[in-house]
Amino acid sequence: MSDQATVDYTEMWTDLGLNVPAHCAVLKLIGPAYEAAYLSQSDRPEGMAYFDFVMSEIHGLRIKELLDHKAAGGSVIGTFCVYVPEEIIRALGGQGIGLCAGAEVAFPEVEQVMPRNTCALIKSFMGFKLGRVCPYIESTDLVVGETTCDGKKKAYEVLGTMHPTHVMELPQMKRPEDRALWRSEIDRFVEKLEELTGRQLEADALRAAIREVNDKRRALQRLNEARKADPVPISGKDALLAVQVAFYDDVPRFTQMVNAIADELEARVADGAGVAPAGTKRILVTGSPMAIPNWKVHDIVERAGGVVVAEELCTGSRYYDALVPEDGETVEDMLEAITDKYLGVNCACFTPNTGRIDDIMRMAEEYEVDGIIHYALQFCSPYQFEGYTVEKAARAAGTPLLRIETDYSMEDVGQLSTRVEAFLEML
Amino acid sequence: MSDQATVDYTEMWTDLGLNVPAHCAVLKLIGPAYEAAYLSQSDRPEGMAYFDFVMSEIHGLRIKELLDHKAAGGSVIGTFCVYVPEEIIRALGGQGIGLCAGAEVAFPEVEQVMPRNTCALIKSFMGFKLGRVCPYIESTDLVVGETTCDGKKKAYEVLGTMHPTHVMELPQMKRPEDRALWRSEIDRFVEKLEELTGRQLEADALRAAIREVNDKRRALQRLNEARKADPVPISGKDALLAVQVAFYDDVPRFTQMVNAIADELEARVADGAGVAPAGTKRILVTGSPMAIPNWKVHDIVERAGGVVVAEELCTGSRYYDALVPEDGETVEDMLEAITDKYLGVNCACFTPNTGRIDDIMRMAEEYEVDGIIHYALQFCSPYQFEGYTVEKAARAAGTPLLRIETDYSMEDVGQLSTRVEAFLEML
Repeated sequence: MSDQATVDYTEMWTDLGLNVPAHCAVLKLIGPAYEAAYLSQSDRPEGMAYFDFVMSEIHGLRIKELLDHKAAGGSVIGTFCVYVPEEIIRALGGQGIGLCAGAEVAFPEVEQVMPRNTCALIKSFMGFKLGRVCPYIESTDLVVGETTCDGKKKAYEVLGTMHPTHVMELPQMKRPEDRALWRSEIDRFVEKLEELTGRQLEADALRAAIREVNDKRRALQRLNEARKADPVPISGKDALLAVQVAFYDDVPRFTQMVNAIADELEARVADGAGVAPAGTKRILVTGSPMAIPNWKVHDIVERAGGVVVAEELCTGSRYYDALVPEDGETVEDMLEAITDKYLGVNCACFTPNTGRIDDIMRMAEEYEVDGIIHYALQFCSPYQFEGYTVEKAARAAGTPLLRIETDYSMEDVGQLSTRVEAFLEML
Repeated sequence: MSDQATVDYTEMWTDLGLNVPAHCAVLKLIGPAYEAAYLSQSDRPEGMAYFDFVMSEIHGLRIKELLDHKAAGGSVIGTFCVYVPEEIIRALGGQGIGLCAGAEVAFPEVEQVMPRNTCALIKSFMGFKLGRVCPYIESTDLVVGETTCDGKKKAYEVLGTMHPTHVMELPQMKRPEDRALWRSEIDRFVEKLEELTGRQLEADALRAAIREVNDKRRALQRLNEARKADPVPISGKDALLAVQVAFYDDVPRFTQMVNAIADELEARVADGAGVAPAGTKRILVTGSPMAIPNWKVHDIVERAGGVVVAEELCTGSRYYDALVPEDGETVEDMLEAITDKYLGVNCACFTPNTGRIDDIMRMAEEYEVDGIIHYALQFCSPYQFEGYTVEKAARAAGTPLLRIETDYSMEDVGQLSTRVEAFLEML
C-alpha cells in the first residue's frame, strides 16, 4: 500500500482534487486489511506477488498510468457493472475502470444525499466520491452507469450532479423487444464515446479490442479451471482478487500475469499440490458483487478451514464466463455480438432469472462443491429475493446452502464465523 | 365492515378458499380502523355515505358482484399499479381490481419467501395471498404485475408460483426506444387478455371503455378541483379514500357517486363552507402509494389540525390527472393513445424523473399549500431516493417540506404526530 510505496504521489492526488489526509486514512485502512487477509496465507502461488504489487500501488502507479494515458490523448471511462462493454471503450482509445467500491467511506455524508437503507456497495461508491478519496473516479472523463437496480438507478441521478455520467438502460427481460432496446443502448454508448473522444469506431480497432478482452477472460477461465482440482491449487481469496483487479488493471499486462499464475496452478494440479489438504470442504459463493477490499466472506470461510473454489458473482464467473465471438467482419457484426454477449449475463435484475440458477447448479457440479454460500449485501433486494429461489434449487439438488446477509462493517464477523463454522462441520 | 353486514358471506369466502377465521380477524382490524379514522370526522359531505357503505361491504357485496360478473362470462383482472391499462381490461369484458394492500397481514409467513426488508406494501399483498385472507385476489382470473421496482419485480416471481400472473415490463426511461418497448408490452397485454377471455379487442368496445374510465377520472378531477378552495370542502382522508376505492369499485356507479359528491363540494365552495376553518394549514402529500387501509399520514395531519388538500401519489393525481384521448378511430389509434397516456405517469421508477418534481411544484401552487409532506414507505428505495430531490426543489421554491419514512405499524404514530405538529406550527 501507499505507506510502503517508495514514490510520493501526494502531488498527483492533490492535482486530482483529492482530500489528501482523508485519502491517506483510507489507504491506511486498506493496507493492513490486505496484509491480514492475504499476506498471512501460506503456499500462495508465486505469481500472486504481482497482485501484492498491484495492491501496494492501487492508488499510485496505476493512477499515474491512467493519467499518462490521458496525457497521450486517451480517455478513462469509469464503470460500475459487468454490463458495460469494455471492448467499445478500448476500441475508442479508452481504458475502462471498474469503480465499485467495497469499503465504508464517508457514510455520514452519503446519508445526506441518499437513503440510509441503501446497500453498502452503492453507499461506498458515493462515499468515495463525496469524500474525495478515490483517484480513479477523479481520473475518469465519464462514468457509465446502468439501470440494474433501484438503488444504482437513482444513485446515478445524484452522481450526475457531481460528475459527467452516462446511464445505459438495461432491460429487465431478455425477449427480442428487450434485445432491441439493449442494442439501441449499445449504439447510444458508441455515439457517446465517439463524441467524447472525437474518434470513430473502426472495425480493426474493435476486433483487436474484442480479442484483447477475450484474452483477459480466457486467462481468468484458465485460472478458475484449475480450481476444479482437489486439492485446490489457489485460495478463494486469491482467485477473487484476480477478478477484482481485472476490472481496473492494464489489460494485456493483467492477461499475461494471470496466464503465468495459471501455468503455475496447472503445474501444481499435475503435482497434486494444493493450498489446502485434499478433502477440504469446497464452497461455491454466489450473490451480490464483491468489490475491493470486500474479502469478508472468503476470509471467514478460509479461516474456518473451508476453501472457496468458485464464485458465481459479477466479480466471478459472470465477468469472465462468456466470450464475444471474434469472427465479426464489420462494426455492425461485432456490435451485434457484443449485444448478445452482455445481455447473456444472468443478473438478478432480470425477471425471470432462471439462467442464474442453472449456472449455479452447473458450477456446483463442475467444481464438486460440498456446499453453497448465498451472499447478499443488506438492502440488495434483487439478490436477497433470489436467495430464496437459489436455496430452493439447492435443496432440490441435495446441496447444502447457507444464506448470509451482511454489509461492509466488521461487527458481525464473529457471528458469521460461528455460522460458517457450523455450516462447514455439517457438510 | 362485515361484522355490521346483514348478509352472511361465509359460504362465498369458503368457496373462494379463504382462511375464514383469519379473514374474520382481518376484517375486525379494518372495521374499527375505518370507524376511528373516518366516522369520527364532522361535517363530512353527505355523499361520503356511499363510501361508508362500500367500506362496510368491502369483502362482501363487491366480491359477490365480481363473482356474478364472472358467472355471466366476464373476467376479473387483478392489478398492483396505475400503469396497467384498465381500458383494455374493460373492453375485453373484464373488471380491473387494484390489489395493493395497506395492512400488515401474515408478515411472518411472508418473510419465509421474501426479504424482511421489503416495503410494507409488497409484504402486505404477499401476506394477503399467503394468509388466504383476500377475496379479491382469489376472485381474479389473472394478476398483472409490472417491473416498477426491484421488490415488486422479484415478488411477482414468487406470486407466479401460486397464482396466474402476467408481468408487464415498464421501461425505465421515456425515450422513443422505451416507448417502442412499452407499446409492445401493451400489445402483449392485449394478446394475453384475448387468449384468457376468448374475445377479440374491438374498436367500439375499446372506445366505450376509454370514455368510461375517463369519466371516472373526470369525476375525481372535479372532486379534487374543489379542494383548491379555502376553506376546503372535504377532508384529505375522504378525498384519499375516493381514489383508493376507484381502484376496485364498479366504474359507472363510482363515477356517478363521485360526481354527486363533487356537486355537493362545489355547492359548499360557493357557500364558503368547509370541513376546516379558512386558514387551516394546507398540506400536499407526495410519495409512495397508500392502499386501503393505509390512512396513517392523512389521519396524523388532520388530527394535528392541518388538512391535506392534494396527493401527488399513485393513489392521487397520478391516477386521475391524465385522460386517454377519445378521438381514436381504430383499435390501433386507441392503443397508441393508451401507450402514451400511461407512459406519461411520473413514477420514481423512471430515470430521470424530473416530471414528478414539476407536478409537485405545480400542484403546490395550484392548491396553495403551506407545506409538503414527502411520504416514503420504509425500504421503498425509489421514493426514498427522490425524497432528497423533492426536498431540494421545495427548498428552492421556499416551500417547507417534511420527510416521513414509515411502515404500516402504529408504533411510530406518537413520534410522527409530534413531528407533524411541529411542522404545522412552523408553517
